[in-house]
Amino acid sequence: MYPKSFKKLIDYFSSLPSVGPKMAERLVLYLFKQEAEMLSDFGETLKNLKNNLRYCERCFNISEGNLCEICADNSRDAKKICVVEEPLDIIAIERTKKYNGLYHVLGGVLSTTKNDDLGQLKLNELSKRVESEKTEEIILAMNPTTEGDATALYVVRLLKDSGVRATKLARGLSTGGDIEYADELTLGSAILNRK
Amino acid sequence: MYPKSFKKLIDYFSSLPSVGPKMAERLVLYLFKQEAEMLSDFGETLKNLKNNLRYCERCFNISEGNLCEICADNSRDAKKICVVEEPLDIIAIERTKKYNGLYHVLGGVLSTTKNDDLGQLKLNELSKRVESEKTEEIILAMNPTTEGDATALYVVRLLKDSGVRATKLARGLSTGGDIEYADELTLGSAILNRK
Repeated sequence: MYPKSFKKLIDYFSSLPSVGPKMAERLVLYLFKQEAEMLSDFGETLKNLKNNLRYCERCFNISEGNLCEICADNSRDAKKICVVEEPLDIIAIERTKKYNGLYHVLGGVLSTTKNDDLGQLKLNELSKRVESEKTEEIILAMNPTTEGDATALYVVRLLKDSGVRATKLARGLSTGGDIEYADELTLGSAILNRK
Repeated sequence: MYPKSFKKLIDYFSSLPSVGPKMAERLVLYLFKQEAEMLSDFGETLKNLKNNLRYCERCFNISEGNLCEICADNSRDAKKICVVEEPLDIIAIERTKKYNGLYHVLGGVLSTTKNDDLGQLKLNELSKRVESEKTEEIILAMNPTTEGDATALYVVRLLKDSGVRATKLARGLSTGGDIEYADELTLGSAILNRK
């Protein structure tokens, strides 16, 4: 029913996470109404996404050069490494402006890779960094999920011989939240970790 | 914080309807993890969206040739024209398989174009078609909204001297809703019960 190239673009948009077929139709119709120049530039940026970008060779953040902006910044505290699941977590932590150390992107958590090689996660790279960079503190900033906790535990065991101090992000009530709606685990750890 | 080309793509995705900045970040990160070939093809399809497609010169549906598939199909009843706001409405009506006539895409409704020239809507083109194609019935299938109703009224007045019979989709559609999202049964009986 749709012209072929229209359908093909709808299919590509539908394949994206949280975009359903109806939404994909609307997006493509919207795009069809835009200027040809905008489409051309959008398409070109998309085509070149991986050409212009790579993973930082030190921390596996997304980067334009061999080292990402954060690793290349000498003003940062190189004795701290914050271990995160994904590059977007770095963005979230940077927005808080409360952390001035480096990062390490694992690229996922343990259970999501159960069919893959465990080696897909950047775990060996992390233990090499801790050794060679004489890291003093590892901050485990995995998502507060079962998989995130399991991964954090794995990292702690992996690094236990290195003598590095391992800390975890505090669990507690989210600011602006409601005690009434906090789940039991969150509320429980907020009580235990009161100060 | 983001590399420039990453940020640029996020901005493009954020500019799409119903895609917020957080969702745009996730989409771009997802895309970054895909194969370069997929990205290249996706980008190429996007770039060429307008090159491969145009508006049908008869009904203004989206088309690969001068005439869209429906206008080019001789088995369809050329004495009926169903007037819709947008090409996606055609898809929705075609899915019901209850209509075998032609279409005419206005490209919007009256109030959405109040800052533009009224001539942006394909109204003159419609009255010329009704005259030259000796149309017997016009089915007004605008969205059941105030603007849709106003546009339908305008079309009826525009064509009142032509002697064409004007029918409207039965109300069974929920007022304030969108034709595109109507389920097939409701939309199908709305077509059969037109008056």
